[in-house]
This record gives sequence, C-alpha cells and structure tokens, in this order.
Amino acid sequence: MGKYAALVDLLLEAVQEGKAGKPAVNSIPVGISNRHVHISQADLDTLFGTGYQLTKAKALSQPMQYACKETLTICGPKGAIEKVRILGPVRQETQVELLQTDCFKLGIAAPVKMSGDLQGTPGITLAGPKGSTFLPQGVILAQRHIHMTLEDASRLGVTDGEQVSIQVEGLRGGTYAHVAIRANNTSALECHLDTEEANAMNLTAISTITIIK
Amino acid sequence: MGKYAALVDLLLEAVQEGKAGKPAVNSIPVGISNRHVHISQADLDTLFGTGYQLTKAKALSQPMQYACKETLTICGPKGAIEKVRILGPVRQETQVELLQTDCFKLGIAAPVKMSGDLQGTPGITLAGPKGSTFLPQGVILAQRHIHMTLEDASRLGVTDGEQVSIQVEGLRGGTYAHVAIRANNTSALECHLDTEEANAMNLTAISTITIIK
Repeated sequence: MGKYAALVDLLLEAVQEGKAGKPAVNSIPVGISNRHVHISQADLDTLFGTGYQLTKAKALSQPMQYACKETLTICGPKGAIEKVRILGPVRQETQVELLQTDCFKLGIAAPVKMSGDLQGTPGITLAGPKGSTFLPQGVILAQRHIHMTLEDASRLGVTDGEQVSIQVEGLRGGTYAHVAIRANNTSALECHLDTEEANAMNLTAISTITIIK
Repeated sequence: MGKYAALVDLLLEAVQEGKAGKPAVNSIPVGISNRHVHISQADLDTLFGTGYQLTKAKALSQPMQYACKETLTICGPKGAIEKVRILGPVRQETQVELLQTDCFKLGIAAPVKMSGDLQGTPGITLAGPKGSTFLPQGVILAQRHIHMTLEDASRLGVTDGEQVSIQVEGLRGGTYAHVAIRANNTSALECHLDTEEANAMNLTAISTITIIK
C-alpha cells in the first residue's frame, strides 16, 4: 500500500472514530452585535446629566445585560455616526465596539481586541444630550468569542481562554479562526459575532455554528 | 508505532513534499467591492437622459472596467440608499450588487448569486437626476469569486466554474467556501469579495489570500 493510500485510510478511520465518539451536541446559537457602547457612570453623568440612570429597552441573551433607550453620537477625525446604542448596565470603563466599516467612516484604526482589553486602543468623541467628552481610549473591534457555562465548556471539550475555529454551513459558509472561549458560571451559550462577520457568512439571529478545533 | 503517530508522520511527510514540489505561487490579490450598479443603456437613458454616456472616474483592476462619476439613489420598501456608484461600461442588463446590511435597510431579500444570474432575483427602484424606474429584477449579493486567466488557472490547478475555498491568515482569519473560479483570456488575477466579507476577515486592498481545495 502506497504512502498516500495509507494516509487516506488512516484519515478515514480517524474521522469515523471521531463521529462515533461524539454526540451531536456541538450546535451553538449565534448572537449578532451591531456597533454599541458600554458606558461608565462618570461618562454617563457628563453626557446625560449627573446621576442619570440608564433606561432598559430590551433584555439581551446574556444574563443582566440589556439594550438601553439611550443612544450617543460618536465623532472621529473624518466623520460621525448618530444613534449608537448604549448597552447596560454601566461598566467600570467606557468601551466603544465598532464595525470595520464604521472605522473607515470615522477615520479611526481600531484593533481587534477582547472586551475589556483597552490598553493602547484609540479614543473618540462621545456626544450626548447634556454634554460631550473625549474618551482617551476604548475603541475596539470585538474579537469573536463564545460565551458558555463551565458545564457547556466541559461538554464541548474546551476551556476558558482557549481559541477555537467555528464552522458555518451554506453557500456563504466557511470557518472563522481565533474565536475565544469565555466560560464562567453565569453565561448563556452563544457565539458573538459582529454584523459584518455575520453577514459575510449569511448568519442571522436563528443561525447556529459548530466548534472545530 | 500507534495509528495516530503513523498518521501524524505521514501528514508531516506529505506537507514537506507538498512544500518542496510547489513554488509559492498561490498568492492572490483581493479586490473589495462596495455596493454598486451595472446599468443598461435603456435604463441609463431613463435615469440620466436619452443617449447619456457614462463618465469614467477611475479604472478598475479588471480590463475595460471602470468606476463612473455617476451615482444613483436606490429605494426599497423600507428605506433608500443614496450615492450608489455606477460601474461602466454599460451592460445588457441592469444589475444591483448590495451588501447584506443594505438589504436590511432597504427591506429586500437578495440572494447570493453569480453576476449575470438574475433569474428570480428581486427588483428595486432606481432614481437618477432625469427620471426613475422600477427594475423588475436584478438585485443580488455577489457570490465571491476569483478572476484569472486560463494560464493562471492551469498554474493554480483550478478550472473555470469550479468552486474552491480560500484561506485568510491573521487574528480575523479563516476560510471562505464556495468561491467560484472565473477563468478566461482577459481577466486580471483577483479575488472579489464584498466589503462585509473583507472586513469580517480584516482584508484590505493590499491583502492576499490563498486557494485551498
């Protein structure tokens, strides 16, 4: 048997064993994020008035997270975008998550970063109904990630902080690499992509993806 | 030697042989398309005036193709988009290539189709400076594809009409499946993606991709 025939046989065998060993549990719902802002109470005070409280408009799938009635205008060197949604509750640090197309419009080069990893990221002007502020840092493109419980992680054979690839079926299908696993005891199972990442793969709010490693 | 050790050894050997046998020629420039319109002379007459001639503003990388000075407003059931660029020269049939995000804004469900394959696609209103028309069909999301000469195709080991996957490196890297090969004697080597597909993989006008089969 030649080397390649042997290789093919071994590969087929490995694939069959893999299939037999795993139940069909690797199906993860998709959550699609448009541009949005997480805001600190200090910045909220500046933009909406001292002691302002966010107004919950719609619960998000992650526990305790919600879309607010309130929106902001964000202004960069080359342009502005109106009606950027604030997500609650307030956070320690203000963070602006944009699409790449927004960055071109605003004239800002935002890096791909995990939420909360704001060191060295660019700033931007935030304008609200009662004031404005120049945020010194905090503009990112969100790195794609999958929220899950530790139980989900164990079932799916992944660990918190690991990066995996995800597989999407269909005419616009393919794989995305470097999808970070974020596992803790309070998260709902959901793969977070931004609007452009979802559209590029023809994913909608009812789509699912699978993890490949 | 166990089955998996043997598998790994064979794979490594195959990879080494592959490297040695192939020169590094599988590197293909990316061309990124924003929303645009290809227009027929009949529709150009209606929208810009009888006998109107398109004004070339900028050559595109494909021979004879150019971006025009002229733009249109397109109007769907839910919204409108201004300043949609016309690409020349005129074609037999008018065709509107949108981003998925445009479809949401306009309220149109456009299918992923190859350029020219307009059967069963939705219509849209086109508004120009001298008139407007309801295009009965022709709105698509362009299926990703790679233009090349027949010589390129032979060198890359692909054939006209075949679908391949492409590989993108980097933090936003991954693969896109179902990328159609379009080989003829006049095309410049270029992988065409729309803005959202490019942004989702962090590709710019100077990026390259590779074909995987």
